[in-house]
Amino acid sequence: MIALCMACHFGALQATYAPKTEPVDLVNPFIGTSNLGTTNPGAICPNGLMSVVPFNVMGSDENKCDKDSRWWSTPYEFHNVFFTGFSHVNLSGVGCPDVGSLLLMPTTGKLNVDYKEYGSHYKDEVARPGYYSNFLVKHGVKTEVTATLRTACERFTFPKGESHLLLNLGEGLTKESGAMVKQVSPTEYEGMKLQGAFCYYAQAVFPIYFVMRVNKVPQSAGYWKKQRERTGKQAEWFPDRGQYKLYTAYQKEMAGDDIGVYMNFNTTDDEVIEVQMGVSFVSIANARENLNAEQKGKDFNTIAQETHQKWNADLSKIEIEGGTKDQQTIFYTALYHTLIHPNILQDVNGQYPAMESNRVLTQHEGNRYTVFSLWDTYRNLHQFMTLVYPNRQRDMIKSMISMYDESGWLPKWELFGRETYTMEGDPSIPVIVDCWLKGLRGYDINKAYTAMKKGATTDEKSNPLRPDNNEYVEKGYISLRDSFDNSVSHALEYYIADNALSRLAAALGHKADAKLFYNRSMGYRHYFSKEFNMLRPILPNGKFYSPFNPLQGANWEPSPGFHEGNAWNYTFYVPHDIYGLAKLMGGKKRFIEQLQSVFDRGNYDPTNEPNIAYPFLFSYFKGEEWRTQVLTHQLLQTYFKNSPEGLPGNDDTGTMSAWALFSMMGFYPDCPGEPAYTLTSPVFDKITLHLDAQQWGKDKLVIETRRSNPQAVRIEKMEVGGQPWTAYRIRHSDLVKAGTLKFILK
Amino acid sequence: MIALCMACHFGALQATYAPKTEPVDLVNPFIGTSNLGTTNPGAICPNGLMSVVPFNVMGSDENKCDKDSRWWSTPYEFHNVFFTGFSHVNLSGVGCPDVGSLLLMPTTGKLNVDYKEYGSHYKDEVARPGYYSNFLVKHGVKTEVTATLRTACERFTFPKGESHLLLNLGEGLTKESGAMVKQVSPTEYEGMKLQGAFCYYAQAVFPIYFVMRVNKVPQSAGYWKKQRERTGKQAEWFPDRGQYKLYTAYQKEMAGDDIGVYMNFNTTDDEVIEVQMGVSFVSIANARENLNAEQKGKDFNTIAQETHQKWNADLSKIEIEGGTKDQQTIFYTALYHTLIHPNILQDVNGQYPAMESNRVLTQHEGNRYTVFSLWDTYRNLHQFMTLVYPNRQRDMIKSMISMYDESGWLPKWELFGRETYTMEGDPSIPVIVDCWLKGLRGYDINKAYTAMKKGATTDEKSNPLRPDNNEYVEKGYISLRDSFDNSVSHALEYYIADNALSRLAAALGHKADAKLFYNRSMGYRHYFSKEFNMLRPILPNGKFYSPFNPLQGANWEPSPGFHEGNAWNYTFYVPHDIYGLAKLMGGKKRFIEQLQSVFDRGNYDPTNEPNIAYPFLFSYFKGEEWRTQVLTHQLLQTYFKNSPEGLPGNDDTGTMSAWALFSMMGFYPDCPGEPAYTLTSPVFDKITLHLDAQQWGKDKLVIETRRSNPQAVRIEKMEVGGQPWTAYRIRHSDLVKAGTLKFILK
Repeated sequence: MIALCMACHFGALQATYAPKTEPVDLVNPFIGTSNLGTTNPGAICPNGLMSVVPFNVMGSDENKCDKDSRWWSTPYEFHNVFFTGFSHVNLSGVGCPDVGSLLLMPTTGKLNVDYKEYGSHYKDEVARPGYYSNFLVKHGVKTEVTATLRTACERFTFPKGESHLLLNLGEGLTKESGAMVKQVSPTEYEGMKLQGAFCYYAQAVFPIYFVMRVNKVPQSAGYWKKQRERTGKQAEWFPDRGQYKLYTAYQKEMAGDDIGVYMNFNTTDDEVIEVQMGVSFVSIANARENLNAEQKGKDFNTIAQETHQKWNADLSKIEIEGGTKDQQTIFYTALYHTLIHPNILQDVNGQYPAMESNRVLTQHEGNRYTVFSLWDTYRNLHQFMTLVYPNRQRDMIKSMISMYDESGWLPKWELFGRETYTMEGDPSIPVIVDCWLKGLRGYDINKAYTAMKKGATTDEKSNPLRPDNNEYVEKGYISLRDSFDNSVSHALEYYIADNALSRLAAALGHKADAKLFYNRSMGYRHYFSKEFNMLRPILPNGKFYSPFNPLQGANWEPSPGFHEGNAWNYTFYVPHDIYGLAKLMGGKKRFIEQLQSVFDRGNYDPTNEPNIAYPFLFSYFKGEEWRTQVLTHQLLQTYFKNSPEGLPGNDDTGTMSAWALFSMMGFYPDCPGEPAYTLTSPVFDKITLHLDAQQWGKDKLVIETRRSNPQAVRIEKMEVGGQPWTAYRIRHSDLVKAGTLKFILK
Repeated sequence: MIALCMACHFGALQATYAPKTEPVDLVNPFIGTSNLGTTNPGAICPNGLMSVVPFNVMGSDENKCDKDSRWWSTPYEFHNVFFTGFSHVNLSGVGCPDVGSLLLMPTTGKLNVDYKEYGSHYKDEVARPGYYSNFLVKHGVKTEVTATLRTACERFTFPKGESHLLLNLGEGLTKESGAMVKQVSPTEYEGMKLQGAFCYYAQAVFPIYFVMRVNKVPQSAGYWKKQRERTGKQAEWFPDRGQYKLYTAYQKEMAGDDIGVYMNFNTTDDEVIEVQMGVSFVSIANARENLNAEQKGKDFNTIAQETHQKWNADLSKIEIEGGTKDQQTIFYTALYHTLIHPNILQDVNGQYPAMESNRVLTQHEGNRYTVFSLWDTYRNLHQFMTLVYPNRQRDMIKSMISMYDESGWLPKWELFGRETYTMEGDPSIPVIVDCWLKGLRGYDINKAYTAMKKGATTDEKSNPLRPDNNEYVEKGYISLRDSFDNSVSHALEYYIADNALSRLAAALGHKADAKLFYNRSMGYRHYFSKEFNMLRPILPNGKFYSPFNPLQGANWEPSPGFHEGNAWNYTFYVPHDIYGLAKLMGGKKRFIEQLQSVFDRGNYDPTNEPNIAYPFLFSYFKGEEWRTQVLTHQLLQTYFKNSPEGLPGNDDTGTMSAWALFSMMGFYPDCPGEPAYTLTSPVFDKITLHLDAQQWGKDKLVIETRRSNPQAVRIEKMEVGGQPWTAYRIRHSDLVKAGTLKFILK
């Protein structure tokens, strides 16, 4: 009866909303473009190097969030109003500003190269995967942009009169300045722009090379350069100091901190001018080769259509039925967001800049990936890739191992060939271990193991990955030496990494290592304070830090021992030893009380990685699994929406989106490095994952869900591969072999 | 008896001072390096593109003349004390700042990239043609530099300890900023620096390309860049704003306004490190080719010796006997200064940047010259080249005609392929006409004539050479439309140019043109004011400008109608019609009185080109020639010295030096475009000019002078080619045919 009833409802839902549209039509690129989601509605290919993003975060007090007047990390904010061009190559979902430069702006009227003056209000925004368009009110110009993997194609429809294209090489999100540009012909420019210094790491600097072409010969063209400020007596004979100087008669190399190219046109009414730009992190020649290879013989519409189709093919790896249209949109947009970073780095000829090196190497097969925000993505994004896009994940692992080959170290937060050392821990380890233990092969695991062990055992003096490794190895913890040294956070990351490393050591037959690293991973117990029933910083003398306020650190205020969070956000952050932690806390009851209090008292931060697996930890304890199910639905409903505010905070290069994807599908990899998932109740009625049969043995995993009532979220029964399933965790191998997963919710 | 007496004295002089030293040993490169002479003691080849100059004009209040605190146009000032490196490629004797960049500095101690801090006092300066050396007190480093035509070779002797080489690409004399540099290998860098904007002409911008090598692998190396200033709220998250940031781990392209390269060495006591730099105005590849070609297999000593020998060969074209050692030094240093600009532009492979163009052209034979300060040099420097170095002068003429081919116009003030439009007039005309009428051939005179006529007759709207040509053509003069529009100066230059053009038209058989341009050249009479017996500005209504103060404009204060001077400096500035002017003034007596008063009342400015031929104008009038002779000796003695203050003011790319050379030899070309000289009494006893026999028929002109007493300066008798000569002017053809010139002074 119940089953029948559920079937009725299921049928009813299908009738009211059957997804006739393609997955690509269910992406809303504006999700996450406000509320600090830091995603953007720009045009990009799946895992593409190029993105073309409407840049609306500088030059005006009218902007709600303007990089000229506050810390700002993303090229676009939904509620901003002042558009200053399209930025080429951008980061999605990150909290530090970088790249987002090569700003191309169409304008009309008298030539003006000051972005504060040429910027424009806009309207009629349209965004879909691979396409963005708006209308610039001030200039009467319709803009449309699309992208291939490494190139941009832009189409501007001008009104009659004096029109211009401005390529601004002085501004952008990156804190690094300096650029060079040269006219190759009246319709082609080539150049280089320095970028980097991400999150204050001043040495992670890299050049982006570009070639830009227009399809109409300008009437005239030139450069501009903001002249250096001159003070004191010098000011007298530098009348143009601090001003934009136009170079109307000079067309050789231009270089400087704040330079640009202008092109002047006389346009007829509705005249269309197209601009193409190729980029490369290797050379100008490669940028040109990329442009030639990817756009040869193709017009704007062809490129936009091809990119649209690529997205649809990738998104169609997961088909969904049921749920509201908003939920479907949230799901496919999350899937879209997980396919942005890491992105490919190599040029069409295979060349890429070697990690931390001047060398240029060649990728002979597969892709070289870049933009590894590993402290974020090791938790779930790579697990998602492993399951749904295993070949990409394999290439990502191979890229990480190659970085070790090239630089001597596995990556931590790699950005276009440079290590930024952002955040902490040793996150490559769980990413690679997780893959290996799930059975993804095709890379040199022994070399990877050597690399991991190097990071784990090298003296801190010559160890860029683990800056406080000595005390950690010696004492099993890191003490608080400086008020805000994030010591506990560092150690917690090392425990997780070492636990994963221990699993790999065991799998590879290195028994002694396995024991060593397992023991290390249990070192978190040092931090356990019976007084607070929490983790608590330890002073160099071995005593706990006092006075201790577990709430200090909320809202990103500095907190002794903890990075971007407080003790609540970190206390349960030992995914590899949940039962051990529960024992320390006095047993299951106390553990559940403490964990539930995090949610009840508002100490859960849905934007903060260390605690995002908390909802799933209830399921380690029999009878408490419903809490996971209720919470995941509540959190999805509260924080994930079909709106610009639809992400709880920084997407963290897809980590938040991957959280939503797993949670909506009914399983979550809460212990990175352990090839297993915690089960929860899915959002959709039917989810079909098209698996890589060569990799996982089956080409499909169908997850069906039946509800006793529309609001039912608690799991009553489960079946795996047609057999009843009572556990609330499932091994990866069981999942991919299952063929079907059935949930009956009450 | 008199002759005998003179002979005695002559012999006595020879006995007391016979120049046993070579001409090159008689050059004092410090002459003109103070008193705004704007020459420098750096190393250079004759007419070389490369010069390596001790740069001591920035960064310290201790400097008497510091470019950071005042208008300054030269890389070196003798009385300054603060050295900040060697600048590569420099201008000599000019009044506007440009080039003088690529600053290379050896330092010791802790790395410091702020020139205000790494600059050093120095001592033990040594300078001779092709070689300069000093000792940097702060760093304990001995520096030595030499140059080939297009490359520099530097030798630094370091003390034991931490040593550095700093290449500063942000500073320099040029007002233009922006540079790019890239590490090619640990011992080689290549790059580009923008230069130009000479004398406020903002569009005359050009890149210099360079390749730099060191002969020792640095221990470490990196870049620096002064970070952009950030104001307001942005300042908070740009902690390094306005500061020099070191890039210790980045070695790809660096670009920006204020960047540099540092190399760190551990040196042993007295360790020598050598640096080579090649430059090109075409490309980095050519800079490298120049370096390879000109320094291959040669060490510092070899290069320095070869350059020394080149100088000696050139200087030996004129041998002198008699005079004091100071006079001989003044003479050979003046000769040295006339062989600096124009300098060659093409690379060893013949390539050079086409005039006002992005094209690269190839010089197949001879040299392509650049740095034509023609408003200065048309008066005497080119006449000197024509006589003594006719092949170079021919190449200069060919270069000027090629500039017309490439840009559509003859040059005015050409600088490395760009027209700066500095000063006024149409000075290419007298330069070329003067050569042609003297019989120097080997260029397309008909094309040159077409080019001249184009400049003379094109409507001012499309005529960059003659911006106020319409009124000039229409009315025969240019009226004062703006207080300081230099209208009279403009017109006076056009009269001179058109007079020369008329002579050429006649020579080429263009009778109507000859008459037209002759008539134009007489238009100066419009400006003649009987009231003042002077030239006086005319208002647009045709009336004279009132109230008129002939003295206004002294000391470079602005003067209505006159450029950098007053009415006195310009009134006699009609060299092509001295008798006509005298007639206007009321005859010879009034003329002589007026002219003499210029000298007697201190209105003669020895630094101001329009009046520098004044002393010779007396000789147009019988019985007054002694004034010329007395004056030239007085002026030489007063303003030309063997000391840093040894030039009266800016050398004006050799113009002042050419004035001294001619005056000391006893003849001066006071009417540019007229193939003749005014004679005056020589300073030396015997001058042997080694002429180009193929060009001038004779291989020698020997000028002998005998004095009735050591102070005798007035000409009593002259012989030309052994025959008595009573005129005080001599045609060029008579001079070069003469074989001997004899002066007997009383």
